[in-house]
Amino acid sequence: MVKRIRLEKKIVSENDRLARELAERFRAAGVLAVNLMSSPGAGKTSLLEETSRRLGGELRLAAIEGDLATDRDAQRLRRAGMPTRQINTGRGCHLNAAQVAEAIQAFDGRGKPLDLDALDVLFIENVGNLICPAQFDLGERRRVVVASTPEGDDKPIKYPVVFDTADCVVLNKMDLLEATFFSCEAFRRYVRGLAPKARILELSCRTGAGLEAWLDWIRAERTAAKKG
Amino acid sequence: MVKRIRLEKKIVSENDRLARELAERFRAAGVLAVNLMSSPGAGKTSLLEETSRRLGGELRLAAIEGDLATDRDAQRLRRAGMPTRQINTGRGCHLNAAQVAEAIQAFDGRGKPLDLDALDVLFIENVGNLICPAQFDLGERRRVVVASTPEGDDKPIKYPVVFDTADCVVLNKMDLLEATFFSCEAFRRYVRGLAPKARILELSCRTGAGLEAWLDWIRAERTAAKKG
Repeated sequence: MVKRIRLEKKIVSENDRLARELAERFRAAGVLAVNLMSSPGAGKTSLLEETSRRLGGELRLAAIEGDLATDRDAQRLRRAGMPTRQINTGRGCHLNAAQVAEAIQAFDGRGKPLDLDALDVLFIENVGNLICPAQFDLGERRRVVVASTPEGDDKPIKYPVVFDTADCVVLNKMDLLEATFFSCEAFRRYVRGLAPKARILELSCRTGAGLEAWLDWIRAERTAAKKG
Repeated sequence: MVKRIRLEKKIVSENDRLARELAERFRAAGVLAVNLMSSPGAGKTSLLEETSRRLGGELRLAAIEGDLATDRDAQRLRRAGMPTRQINTGRGCHLNAAQVAEAIQAFDGRGKPLDLDALDVLFIENVGNLICPAQFDLGERRRVVVASTPEGDDKPIKYPVVFDTADCVVLNKMDLLEATFFSCEAFRRYVRGLAPKARILELSCRTGAGLEAWLDWIRAERTAAKKG
């Protein structure tokens, strides 16, 4: 067990080193890098689809998609106008900084790198998992956790490791609120207890309600990232 | 990386050894042990609550609950009449066989073990995660994956590692079907492609629709476990 812990520390510190390099590249280029994390099916891809449709004419966006298998999400984002690179992790439960660096390096799948200097926002959609992704820095400037009403309002206190480092918590599927037992008041209280400064944005990717506040948050964070 | 793989193999083989011991104890006692896996919020605990209410007078049931934090789920199950032991994993993304063995050994929290000879079914509710739990045998006789309609019908092909070892796939939240874009036909096709022999049971813990088929599956599996 001691050996296992030592080895995990070594793996994490190598990841941290690569993540710092990525963060420096994003900073130098003035790119807002956002690490999106959630349970499977909470709506990360839907959020990025809507973001691309509504913000694609205004800001230069790109995405890196993490999934165990398939390139369905990358296809969805490309159809919505977002240049996207798919990473398949196989049995891997999270993205790491090396995978992100590789995806940037061979962004088009034919060896052509992503030009960070010609980019405003890079969305990194992590593997759907509320636990492991939280422990791996990807060089991102901001962490966003996407939750959804059918999952239940107690998820922050049951999965604190991902919520306590969030800069923004998006509560999606507000259109299903009436059909669930979800209490927005309890959810907000639980998030506040873990991440007092995190923005909490209630929205519905399906109806579009609340999306404008999310786009404004991205715009403001993008402006801040540009300033360094 | 070679070292990491070797160590992971060692950890898994130690887990496998403990899991085989557990499986032998369950077999000797004629207990049906069921490992329940799902995304966060798919409805594992709700399914066990309803199972306890509807089957508790007929079969002797107990549960082990895995969560990163809180004992909320154990409290819910106890209120529904199910003797339950909570395991908190901290940052741990899955249950392992050692944790299950310890929970059996100190089931009441005061050092009194669970009497397997006085039990029919032991439900082991894993940590909410569609990836890591699949790789750790807990000595269970049957694996159940709980999915839910708001998560989307493509989850089997995006998270194949948990679906391809399932004996039974419960599709919960059928009451929300109309409000989602979920295709039951696509979902069934994807599950069949990974686990051709798995039972697929569509139900709603909220309305009770479809629960009888689930109870019948448990009854039949319990009878088979009794026969050895």
